Amino acid sequence: MKVSAKSLAIILNGTCEGNPDVEVWKPCKIEEGEIGGISFLANSKYESYLYNTQCSAIIVSEDFVPSQPYSPTLIRVKDVYGAVATLLSQFNVSPSTDHHISSLAFIDKNAVLPTQCTIEAFSCVSKSASIGENTRIYPHVFVGENVKVGRNVIIHAGVKIYHDCIIGDNVIIHSNVVIGSDGFGFTKNEQGEYIKINQIGNVIIEDNVEIGANTVIDRATMGSTFIRKGVKLDNLIQIAHNVEINENTVIAAQAGVAGSSKIGKDCLIGGQVGIVGHIQIADGTMIQAQSGVNASIKETKTKWYGSPALDYTAFLRSFSVFKKLPELLKRLEKLEADTRK
Amino acid sequence: MKVSAKSLAIILNGTCEGNPDVEVWKPCKIEEGEIGGISFLANSKYESYLYNTQCSAIIVSEDFVPSQPYSPTLIRVKDVYGAVATLLSQFNVSPSTDHHISSLAFIDKNAVLPTQCTIEAFSCVSKSASIGENTRIYPHVFVGENVKVGRNVIIHAGVKIYHDCIIGDNVIIHSNVVIGSDGFGFTKNEQGEYIKINQIGNVIIEDNVEIGANTVIDRATMGSTFIRKGVKLDNLIQIAHNVEINENTVIAAQAGVAGSSKIGKDCLIGGQVGIVGHIQIADGTMIQAQSGVNASIKETKTKWYGSPALDYTAFLRSFSVFKKLPELLKRLEKLEADTRK
Amino acid sequence: MKVSAKSLAIILNGTCEGNPDVEVWKPCKIEEGEIGGISFLANSKYESYLYNTQCSAIIVSEDFVPSQPYSPTLIRVKDVYGAVATLLSQFNVSPSTDHHISSLAFIDKNAVLPTQCTIEAFSCVSKSASIGENTRIYPHVFVGENVKVGRNVIIHAGVKIYHDCIIGDNVIIHSNVVIGSDGFGFTKNEQGEYIKINQIGNVIIEDNVEIGANTVIDRATMGSTFIRKGVKLDNLIQIAHNVEINENTVIAAQAGVAGSSKIGKDCLIGGQVGIVGHIQIADGTMIQAQSGVNASIKETKTKWYGSPALDYTAFLRSFSVFKKLPELLKRLEKLEADTRK
Repeated sequence: MKVSAKSLAIILNGTCEGNPDVEVWKPCKIEEGEIGGISFLANSKYESYLYNTQCSAIIVSEDFVPSQPYSPTLIRVKDVYGAVATLLSQFNVSPSTDHHISSLAFIDKNAVLPTQCTIEAFSCVSKSASIGENTRIYPHVFVGENVKVGRNVIIHAGVKIYHDCIIGDNVIIHSNVVIGSDGFGFTKNEQGEYIKINQIGNVIIEDNVEIGANTVIDRATMGSTFIRKGVKLDNLIQIAHNVEINENTVIAAQAGVAGSSKIGKDCLIGGQVGIVGHIQIADGTMIQAQSGVNASIKETKTKWYGSPALDYTAFLRSFSVFKKLPELLKRLEKLEADTRK
Repeated sequence: MKVSAKSLAIILNGTCEGNPDVEVWKPCKIEEGEIGGISFLANSKYESYLYNTQCSAIIVSEDFVPSQPYSPTLIRVKDVYGAVATLLSQFNVSPSTDHHISSLAFIDKNAVLPTQCTIEAFSCVSKSASIGENTRIYPHVFVGENVKVGRNVIIHAGVKIYHDCIIGDNVIIHSNVVIGSDGFGFTKNEQGEYIKINQIGNVIIEDNVEIGANTVIDRATMGSTFIRKGVKLDNLIQIAHNVEINENTVIAAQAGVAGSSKIGKDCLIGGQVGIVGHIQIADGTMIQAQSGVNASIKETKTKWYGSPALDYTAFLRSFSVFKKLPELLKRLEKLEADTRK
Repeated sequence: MKVSAKSLAIILNGTCEGNPDVEVWKPCKIEEGEIGGISFLANSKYESYLYNTQCSAIIVSEDFVPSQPYSPTLIRVKDVYGAVATLLSQFNVSPSTDHHISSLAFIDKNAVLPTQCTIEAFSCVSKSASIGENTRIYPHVFVGENVKVGRNVIIHAGVKIYHDCIIGDNVIIHSNVVIGSDGFGFTKNEQGEYIKINQIGNVIIEDNVEIGANTVIDRATMGSTFIRKGVKLDNLIQIAHNVEINENTVIAAQAGVAGSSKIGKDCLIGGQVGIVGHIQIADGTMIQAQSGVNASIKETKTKWYGSPALDYTAFLRSFSVFKKLPELLKRLEKLEADTRK
């Protein structure tokens, strides 16, 4: 796609500042800009690149005030990231998109396929599984018995979905994700050995969910583990048995949620966060990276930090004193000495 | 299976309270109960559900005292989780269980197969590997050269086992686990580049071990990395080269053990715990989630918390003061001001 | 290989102490030594094993001073780990190494293969992908469209490489690694739902990199995520979109680097470390395991610890007072009581 800054501004619902006729055809990073390049500036950390970039046009916020001369045409928009999303949706370079079923895939004779879908080489669709219209399954995917996969789903190479799990519409699952593995449930016998508790539930993933590479979502002991509509999970996340993650919650990489906990809607959970089992997290909760939440959070829209997690501001205040603890100790010792005199 | 509460009480070695003739056929969560449902109450957090559930029968502890009226028949048992394990073993709904070797699997002509086992489509059994009786290998499994897999083993889809590793009997390995990848060993040359140290050891997994999805167990540099009898590893765990995890130790998701450390028997290690290399952890040690253990633990049955980890109670005491540090600082400043007067 | 201690000392550029004619043929752990065994002693924690081992020869540092009698021949070298690397490179026991392309692999007719390489059963090489000379691809590997893989590369079973990514020469990628999955980028619409930002960049992995099992490296939103020459990544690591890891940096297992951060050369990053997005880490930085780095580090060769991370020594000093906080509080209370009198 080759487009003038003027036309792009219309597409992005913004205004054009500078040469409106300059043409762009290549989205690129602002610091690696070149003629024809279109980039964006959303985080002020990167502002200095604007004054040297060779990009032909840059998307900025409508209230951005440059502090130095610059050469690109500016496209001013209300929501920079929204505009970038729109821009990049025009430049999709994902691989071949014609539908076909590879002769090297294994499709059980009792699996149910739609009129149109893609199943690539060496993928397996097991007995009584069903696949929705326009769904695309890359190589080495395992769809277990009785699994239901919705429409317009993309399942990347190497994903494994155990029996009985349900995947909604418009879901994207990245490579080597595991869905429906056994919950971690054991009971000790009199000899002190652990006996496995059969995990007879499943996982239900609702519409518009995206799941990052190598993430694991365990099946419920009984009932279902739920990933509700619009949830976005990053890579290498652990979701234990019987967990429920509610609508539009976002969880960053390497976080983990232990068994039976329920996370509210619209939460933002940072990377490497741990959440213990059997608790509830209210809607709109924000949890800073690496925090450890070990009790229910009942009030909505609160912010947490630390391990174990405290109120965000309280943690920062305590931590600022933690940094001065050696000095504090000396001051205490001096007081003690003075008092003893 | 449809069974009366009375009969189920006998199977579970418990006693029946309420209508002994009510029939159950469906294990379910207590909060999602329905006619015919059988559930359990083990954690008092969920007690309120008992008074509203539509389940026909509920397994409770023999000393449970209800605080409100309820409708289900109670089955009182000594060990609720043990009874649930027994119950669910009767309701197994795992997929097809007849043995067969798929014509789409790749079996090297020098591999050794038993009379009866299952090898699904697109799995590879390499040269000189051997598989035990009644073992079930799902699709996309790689069994490297000279690997030995025991009897009654279940290897889920996508597991990769590098050459020379040994898997005992009755082991369960979940999807996309990697066993026998190279230990992380390098030495620096004079140019400051890292030179790989060949990892010529293997991994030995003993009987009755279960390994969660996407966990990695590296091969030893020399000798073996050991996972001893009855160990249970959750998902996304890192076990480095030359580690030894002893009998019946349980490790929760996303924990990591660095090279050459030895973990005792019957330990309980929480999620996201880190254990540094070259240390020893005594039998029966309990480590709270997210803790970081950086020195050997010599006394058995101790409990640890924090990063770096302290005695569990000591950590909680220090942390309770940490929360009050800003106030402490003010009190110190006041004392200083008072003393100066 | 069977070799005399004398000859081995020459190979390792060391000197021989004790019987120079004893023969060794089996590298083993010092504590599991046996006749013919050759092991090493680098960490003084293991010194006591030297006095009991049955190994025939032990590699030690040239300045090692034994404190008790011992039986093996000593081979004294300047750099023990370097000598071990050389030793083990002589004892490689990796599986079959003749090149072949399996008839069970799927090679697109527009893929470019060299004269000599290995592609094992059930691997896929997609349209316009190219593979370099002497490269070895194990089973269940997915090489996406337009991917370029260099020479002498080893890609273990189950690795997935998305379209357009580039892999240099002499790279080793362990099982179930994912390269080029979508960066975690969304923007919120007016309904509070997240809209995906297409990730149109790629991943570039330079020469001599090694990547541990189940690690994930996301593709850039625009431009490239870079893993520079000689970088070594352990298992289960998260590298987000647009990150750059520079030459010869080493990252231990389960660490994570968030979007757009740039890590310098020759850094040592511990296990389970978290690094936030959009920051820069100077060359030679050392970060202790489980630390959380939330701001740029500008000075080279500094050492960090804690979450959030502090200067290493400062953290240890503060932490040593943290351990005494309950006592500190009592002393403060006593002072207050004394002052009030």
